[in-house]
Amino acid sequence: MRGGSFITIEGGEGAGKTTLIQALAVKAQQQGYEVMITREPGGIPIAEAIRTVILQKENTAMDARTEALLYAAARRQHLAEKVMPALNQGTVVICDRFVDSSLAYQGHARGLGFDAVWEINRFATEGCMPDLTLYLDLDPEIGLMRIEKNSDREVNRLDLEGLAFHRLVREGFKLVEERFKERFITLDASESPDQVVEKAWQYLEHKLLTRKDEN
Amino acid sequence: MRGGSFITIEGGEGAGKTTLIQALAVKAQQQGYEVMITREPGGIPIAEAIRTVILQKENTAMDARTEALLYAAARRQHLAEKVMPALNQGTVVICDRFVDSSLAYQGHARGLGFDAVWEINRFATEGCMPDLTLYLDLDPEIGLMRIEKNSDREVNRLDLEGLAFHRLVREGFKLVEERFKERFITLDASESPDQVVEKAWQYLEHKLLTRKDEN
Repeated sequence: MRGGSFITIEGGEGAGKTTLIQALAVKAQQQGYEVMITREPGGIPIAEAIRTVILQKENTAMDARTEALLYAAARRQHLAEKVMPALNQGTVVICDRFVDSSLAYQGHARGLGFDAVWEINRFATEGCMPDLTLYLDLDPEIGLMRIEKNSDREVNRLDLEGLAFHRLVREGFKLVEERFKERFITLDASESPDQVVEKAWQYLEHKLLTRKDEN
Repeated sequence: MRGGSFITIEGGEGAGKTTLIQALAVKAQQQGYEVMITREPGGIPIAEAIRTVILQKENTAMDARTEALLYAAARRQHLAEKVMPALNQGTVVICDRFVDSSLAYQGHARGLGFDAVWEINRFATEGCMPDLTLYLDLDPEIGLMRIEKNSDREVNRLDLEGLAFHRLVREGFKLVEERFKERFITLDASESPDQVVEKAWQYLEHKLLTRKDEN
């Protein structure tokens, strides 16, 4: 029985997930919540080792189904070792990307099929799904321009996929929204960071108060 | 459209898979077939990297679902890069362990559920299943004694699971037999190697001749 709340933040490249997550964590802490920020692989050695295999640029021969299974494996280990224990201790867990990224990227954009990818992720999550997902929606052209300006971050294999791929990813997130209306909120990430944080916090605060009443 | 034949050999530890595979390959080659012997990860760099993560003894915190997803990922890559191209060229592919090992080990012995593990392996194989599976059935007590005598082979994390686990694995293979009667043949591996090879070859030769007629 989990007492905590599981919040996931989704969005394409350059949509501002990191900034939003940090702002939401501060606000939740100010309201007295115990907060943990994480992202897969989350410092879990087994999941880190899996991620290394996924992101190596030289692994260009990687089959799309292999990639989807590896993401699901890293997800499972991160969930079992880090997220579930924190939720069981009543922590608010804010996770940068989760199942919905696999559905949008692998399921839709790479054409593996939404339902097939959902099936392997159901196996990986064993029912541990987010209470609330905040999706930062942004035209991928704007997102990639933002990344190019950010000289601190090295461009990896996934960035190189190009604009057409990232447009398919955005379509994929719309399919996720249709499937998971009860937990999935789309935010306009072209607005100012302050505006985005304000709207996101309204949804998050409401969810936290509701869950507090339930427990 | 595959012209080759996909043969998998299954069995617990020490059941004699390696000896059987080599003997069958020689017999098939003598009949004029192009033969490829392989096993996961099969020298495929991405699959080798995944296997390294699975077998590291220090990774004792590995969740059973993570392990099952990693086996499926390594399987997929090996299949896509090595097995499928060979089958498409008309080769007889003899593979040491395949999906049935995951069903017996992870699905049954580790208690993840036969159907759940079958689901992620259906994703991994995308319908590329064996034409014939030969299972070397052996009392695990005899199998582990055989391994201990074999000083060339280093004992790994999976060997350390103990006898109770390997008994569950054997039960798991019985469930596989019930599910996949049309392709799954159980052989008594307590018989002499020559007897086992002779019976196995009868099944294999029949399958190869049947498939030749089909093509």
